[in-house]
Amino acid sequence: MSQKQFKSDGNIVAPYLLGLARSNPGLTVIEHDRVVFRTASAPSAKSKPKVMLVSGGGSGHEPTHAGFVGDGALDAIAAGAIFASPSTKQIFSAIKSVESPKGTLLIVKNYTGDIIHFGLAAERANAAGIKVELVAVGDDVSVGKKKGSLVGRRGLGATVLVHKIAGAAASHGLELSEVAEIARAVVENSATIAASLDHCTVPGHKPENILGENEYEIGMGIHNESGTERRSPLPSIPQLVSELLPLVLGEKEDNSFVEFSPTDDVVLMINNMGGMSNLELGYATEIVSEQLIQNFRIIPKRTIMGAFITALNGPGFGITLLNASKAGPDILKYFDYPTTASGWNQNYHSAQDWKVLAEGKVPAAPPLKTAKNEKPSGVKTDYDTFSKILLSGIARVKEVEPKVTWYDTIAGDGDCGTTLVSGGKALEEAIQKHDLRLTDAAHGIEDIAYIVEDSMGGTSGGLYSIYLSALAKGISDSGDRFLTVGTFRMALKTALDALYKYTSARPGYRTLIDALQPFVEALNMGKGPRIAVEAALNGAEKTRKMDALVGRASYVAKEELRKLDDEGGLPDPGAVGLAALLDGLVSAAGY
Amino acid sequence: MSQKQFKSDGNIVAPYLLGLARSNPGLTVIEHDRVVFRTASAPSAKSKPKVMLVSGGGSGHEPTHAGFVGDGALDAIAAGAIFASPSTKQIFSAIKSVESPKGTLLIVKNYTGDIIHFGLAAERANAAGIKVELVAVGDDVSVGKKKGSLVGRRGLGATVLVHKIAGAAASHGLELSEVAEIARAVVENSATIAASLDHCTVPGHKPENILGENEYEIGMGIHNESGTERRSPLPSIPQLVSELLPLVLGEKEDNSFVEFSPTDDVVLMINNMGGMSNLELGYATEIVSEQLIQNFRIIPKRTIMGAFITALNGPGFGITLLNASKAGPDILKYFDYPTTASGWNQNYHSAQDWKVLAEGKVPAAPPLKTAKNEKPSGVKTDYDTFSKILLSGIARVKEVEPKVTWYDTIAGDGDCGTTLVSGGKALEEAIQKHDLRLTDAAHGIEDIAYIVEDSMGGTSGGLYSIYLSALAKGISDSGDRFLTVGTFRMALKTALDALYKYTSARPGYRTLIDALQPFVEALNMGKGPRIAVEAALNGAEKTRKMDALVGRASYVAKEELRKLDDEGGLPDPGAVGLAALLDGLVSAAGY
Repeated sequence: MSQKQFKSDGNIVAPYLLGLARSNPGLTVIEHDRVVFRTASAPSAKSKPKVMLVSGGGSGHEPTHAGFVGDGALDAIAAGAIFASPSTKQIFSAIKSVESPKGTLLIVKNYTGDIIHFGLAAERANAAGIKVELVAVGDDVSVGKKKGSLVGRRGLGATVLVHKIAGAAASHGLELSEVAEIARAVVENSATIAASLDHCTVPGHKPENILGENEYEIGMGIHNESGTERRSPLPSIPQLVSELLPLVLGEKEDNSFVEFSPTDDVVLMINNMGGMSNLELGYATEIVSEQLIQNFRIIPKRTIMGAFITALNGPGFGITLLNASKAGPDILKYFDYPTTASGWNQNYHSAQDWKVLAEGKVPAAPPLKTAKNEKPSGVKTDYDTFSKILLSGIARVKEVEPKVTWYDTIAGDGDCGTTLVSGGKALEEAIQKHDLRLTDAAHGIEDIAYIVEDSMGGTSGGLYSIYLSALAKGISDSGDRFLTVGTFRMALKTALDALYKYTSARPGYRTLIDALQPFVEALNMGKGPRIAVEAALNGAEKTRKMDALVGRASYVAKEELRKLDDEGGLPDPGAVGLAALLDGLVSAAGY
Repeated sequence: MSQKQFKSDGNIVAPYLLGLARSNPGLTVIEHDRVVFRTASAPSAKSKPKVMLVSGGGSGHEPTHAGFVGDGALDAIAAGAIFASPSTKQIFSAIKSVESPKGTLLIVKNYTGDIIHFGLAAERANAAGIKVELVAVGDDVSVGKKKGSLVGRRGLGATVLVHKIAGAAASHGLELSEVAEIARAVVENSATIAASLDHCTVPGHKPENILGENEYEIGMGIHNESGTERRSPLPSIPQLVSELLPLVLGEKEDNSFVEFSPTDDVVLMINNMGGMSNLELGYATEIVSEQLIQNFRIIPKRTIMGAFITALNGPGFGITLLNASKAGPDILKYFDYPTTASGWNQNYHSAQDWKVLAEGKVPAAPPLKTAKNEKPSGVKTDYDTFSKILLSGIARVKEVEPKVTWYDTIAGDGDCGTTLVSGGKALEEAIQKHDLRLTDAAHGIEDIAYIVEDSMGGTSGGLYSIYLSALAKGISDSGDRFLTVGTFRMALKTALDALYKYTSARPGYRTLIDALQPFVEALNMGKGPRIAVEAALNGAEKTRKMDALVGRASYVAKEELRKLDDEGGLPDPGAVGLAALLDGLVSAAGY
């Protein structure tokens, strides 16, 4: 994705908090102080007293912290400007908003500014008679012990685990010192490492500190500060994970903060820094799990993935491991406890539920067995001729693929050409493995329909598959003993009718029908296969002048379709591909 | 953020499904068929029979669809390749995995490929004796009625609402025809419009179809297909929302599909297309809410925001409105019903809970009133002199700001200079408004401490504020009647000791202490203010040769700090800024 940004003066934090409260009816907002608190925690709500959890910090890490205000998690937060600590006054306002006789635990990420402001607020609160303890969260292992001896570890993913686990402990009625002890135990037994392909864009600021085209950063923080190391070239996710896991597991002495052994109960958290797709994040989760299990014999007892603590839209992720066994006996119980905080995207699962994953294997079921038609159609074909014709069609499709892809990049999602070639390659492989029943015309085409559907996917795979299935049925129903042009005439026609049941596309709508229909019609008017192919090629050419009525191109602005006006307009890529296929098939059949 | 991508062969869908199942113990995966089903819905689980909900589609829209498998939502899904429909065989496998005597509802986004494959699967399932109904979801209003008459509306955000609402209906024991009717009612009464700054990057593919630097797209789909309209220049979020709302509300006749009136119960969903920061998404939620309420008198009864149906990392968002009143009597009840699907990030809130938002106002509390020290310190100052000195210091800071910003862009997060100037501007404003109590030295400095903390934020704001608060106390404790250099000597020293309680920074650590400490020390050694300023400037210069031990620069690679070697190394921006401030203050005081 691009570095483009919405125009902004950067004043979006207070409105963000209001937007959050609109989607979570348990919250109250003090707009001026940029404070959000759990309505039920206010002294006026007269709920049963509990230890209050107050956190906060710079903005830009959403859902941290405001998204973790809720039953079973935080009670109040103060939000600073983007990447800047809230002021002492804001923090004091958050503390006051949920003042409780049982006292308040301040949860602070270990950054100088946050420590200073929360420290000052704690002093003020204590002076005002409010019982307060402070826990500093530091879990980053990227800065080694030597270099970080004075500043300590930075607060990253463990912050979220502290919110959740200490929050549940407070909900269970524990005292301030007990909740603080649990929070500190979670911090001491957590380790995080993050990596990112680039820095994030900050609303109201020009992109800055961008990495080189081939560089990525290890030890990425959450404030656009430079990471501890830049590497290149860009890695695959499995490669990156193999670089990160030894660090988070403390295999380098200087970065070893927490020990993990196969007998420990380990919590794994994969955190999206904000700009990764959820698809890639889930992929990363699986890769981390596999490598942890296979290379380190560590089977996480709990796994969570999502955007929990972000660097705005940072294109990277962090791996956090918590050694729950070492942190105390009730850590998993508190982890599992329900919350209404929207930042915690894991809905409730019991300890019993989680047991299915205890062996490190995802619950699995076998694939569906397809029930193919085994009854011979009676229409015999010659294996070698049939495969030669098929291979010729595929070769022709491969030739036109670059052009088809280019057309589809403009008018569609760019996959039309490669989809066709995927189908072709799968058929080539099946022919090589003798997987196709090519001595029976109907069985052969039915097998092709299955392979095309499996390998192509998408609309075109579906249309081809429906058409071929119906064609197989038509040939089977013909009663012929050998395959001739005559056998095809009627079967091609009835298959076209079947296709029309599933698509509203008709001739003139700028789809592959504009190549298929002329071919079928020409044959049915008694013309020879070569003339029918010419009709298909002409039909595809004619799509250059057509407006899109159905299919993806129908959503595309007309100006886009007018590109390639020097070629006579942009043709429909699906029609071009099909016409080429027919050309290749018919040529090899000797016409 | 950048267009950089992890290296990938694109084969990440099956591992994604496994990663998802690792974070949700209620799921079973058929890896080969890329099917995920709710374990409790399998026939072997022998749960109480219910109508089964099966969905699916191309991948790249996560958490849709697999993230919506769970209690109270979907029972099974089939995932296609990225942006390509699953095959009929995959869909049939999903249907079979949760076969039930009460039948199966297929929920399909209205795209040709999906309709074809799910349609074929429905035919096969019916032929195999499984009772199946199909609901096509189309809610996009960007393609008008005329153009879209044949293809219908595309399926966007309403897909998620159907998963949730029909899922809850099925959990309530309704029959297949009833659940299908509810699902269709949700579709018919939903409207969505999306916009994005750019297209997304597809794993394993080079970025394509990128918009111009100043262009954005309205009517953005979720498959990188071009939107219906490109506009420029890049808008602010409020401006974009004002362009989108009339479309989704059907103010343009051709795009009017659903009517909304102020008396209807309306559900609002703000959907992140994947690459927007959560901060900006929440901001957009608030802006949409405000404009809906103020300009259209529509107060949403339920609001949800998050990444529900994405276009990988698309940098945009969609607005979906559902007219729940028109869709039926139980829509909100089903919306509120709990689910274990992780894609639904809203934890449980009851209808009663939601009532606090019924008037369209977020629950609010007043800001904290600061308790300033009102007792005169006895140390008198001249208002005009005091303000003149302050303004001179601020002017000097403004002069060095560009240089400080540049240093901090390399070594920190780039905000050091602008933060100082923010503080300066706020003080200028306060002076102009006569908000500072500048006739009492301690009161004046205390007021400055509050303003500096409020306006600067961040570490430096905190450090300045702590230092100034302690300085005010020191001056108050001096017993002097007028402010002299002598009054400052001891007060500056005790304030430095106070500061050391909250920071581990000491001289030589490459922080603003390297400018402050020499200044304080020189004065306390009996030197004059000018010599003390020279000591501060020298101290800042010396930081060019220091390694960072604390502060953000301590996380930065040493090579970065070696930039500017021609200037003699990179100095600490905070120290440079403070030395300039002291220079300006002392100069105006006549030294």
